[in-house]
Amino acid sequence: MRNSKMASHLSHFTHKTSFFTSNPRRPSPPCMSVVLSTAPTQSYWASIDAQIDAYLNKSIPIRSPESVFEPMHHLTFAAPRTTAASLCVAACEPAIHLMHAAAYTHEHLPLTDRPRPRPGIQHKYNPNIELLTGDGIIPFGLELLARSLDPARSNPDKILRVIVEITRATGSQGMVDGQYQELGLDQLGSEYDVIEYVCKKKEGELHACGAACGAILGGGAEEEIESLRRFGLYAGMVQGIQGKNKAGFMEEKIEKFKELALKELESLQGKKTELISSLVEPSLAAVQIS
Amino acid sequence: MRNSKMASHLSHFTHKTSFFTSNPRRPSPPCMSVVLSTAPTQSYWASIDAQIDAYLNKSIPIRSPESVFEPMHHLTFAAPRTTAASLCVAACEPAIHLMHAAAYTHEHLPLTDRPRPRPGIQHKYNPNIELLTGDGIIPFGLELLARSLDPARSNPDKILRVIVEITRATGSQGMVDGQYQELGLDQLGSEYDVIEYVCKKKEGELHACGAACGAILGGGAEEEIESLRRFGLYAGMVQGIQGKNKAGFMEEKIEKFKELALKELESLQGKKTELISSLVEPSLAAVQIS
Repeated sequence: MRNSKMASHLSHFTHKTSFFTSNPRRPSPPCMSVVLSTAPTQSYWASIDAQIDAYLNKSIPIRSPESVFEPMHHLTFAAPRTTAASLCVAACEPAIHLMHAAAYTHEHLPLTDRPRPRPGIQHKYNPNIELLTGDGIIPFGLELLARSLDPARSNPDKILRVIVEITRATGSQGMVDGQYQELGLDQLGSEYDVIEYVCKKKEGELHACGAACGAILGGGAEEEIESLRRFGLYAGMVQGIQGKNKAGFMEEKIEKFKELALKELESLQGKKTELISSLVEPSLAAVQIS
Repeated sequence: MRNSKMASHLSHFTHKTSFFTSNPRRPSPPCMSVVLSTAPTQSYWASIDAQIDAYLNKSIPIRSPESVFEPMHHLTFAAPRTTAASLCVAACEPAIHLMHAAAYTHEHLPLTDRPRPRPGIQHKYNPNIELLTGDGIIPFGLELLARSLDPARSNPDKILRVIVEITRATGSQGMVDGQYQELGLDQLGSEYDVIEYVCKKKEGELHACGAACGAILGGGAEEEIESLRRFGLYAGMVQGIQGKNKAGFMEEKIEKFKELALKELESLQGKKTELISSLVEPSLAAVQIS
């Protein structure tokens, strides 16, 4: 991908008011910059998803060799959306979605010790192609990020910091650990303990990473970065647990994590947090900010 | 991994004379810095391998959760050495070896459409674990690199450039493309055409990347970077073709690429290139430099 494409993508976001910028005339940094919007919340999140899709569509054209790029394009969009990416708009959201898409593809790969496809999963490609495509998507996501320096605001240290955040959250200490535990490879305790741990490692830490990256690139102070990271962790865990079959038995946990998430946002006094709080509290979806 | 570990690793290399440093009193940059050595060539390469191993051993301790880190440790060392990593010493050689180890692990993964293990390959873990471990190794390699800033010579732009080099060489445009073609997913032409293309994409571009990264981090000029990149490409292709069963039928190709590799080194006049030239021309192994 050429730098010009990335630059135009970044500028696409930067006309909006930043989460961390109180003076609207100061140019906003390229991240966390669409937290304010005149649209209602639902269409706000949908519009972020549409922007991510448009960007990924441009970044992964179906070009030669088609046997490589066609599956890459398809499998990127076959993974369901994760709101973790939306927490961190612009420079790193495609990277987070791509890491998630690679993990999703490999999670559903038919291996010899899990030969039957999971119910409801359609495989468009044979396992060889799905394996290799996932392997190609991971470095591609990080390549996009490493190339994403906007010359006008060049800050390679921040990009490196965000690369460390994303590699940790998606690697052996984060998402991969959650996938291990989901396969029952360790004995962590009761079924509910396992669900909680898996949701922390998978959805939780990915959302924590998205929120922290947004805050880092958006120029947040260290305590804001950590507060948004905790918000992301709890919001992701709420989503993760709600997505499990056993969610009905874990209402107390869900309420606890919702409360913790909203409490983190309260600590960010003076920041306009209504829209991101709607990730855990849909009742706030009606709030419209101009 | 803590920064101190990486810093001590870097300093371990920097007492040696750099490829790009003609004045021995000028501190050498952290890459391409062991091209000169008083040892004969064979033990020179062995000593680089030993240094990479020692560093990876420290970086991937077998710690909790052991179900995650024990296979990661094992599969990192189970992959055969690639000299691509040795072309780029210090900051990025562990990253290149880890990307190679992940690819090697996934290449030998028993999938439902290639269920029988390849002859000679011992699988210590079940496919689930090997898949996830490879998925963890890729981001870990890039994390090491993104964290590898030596505060004394901090140059985040160079690290980002090297990340782009490595993600491209190991992703869909490089190694993954070679793996696709090796599986016969496209029709490229004759059997020999396929071997040449696969060796270019796999061994060739990985060695090109290693040499270019070494030159970038070592402070080489742009034309030196490109010249070493081409050297790495040809040297890697020679190794790749020699490693195939059909090598006996491709002697002409091998000789052509050896010649091209050595010609690139000639263009680096005044640099001491005898040791890296021994990658393609073992007869030079007897040359001992002090």
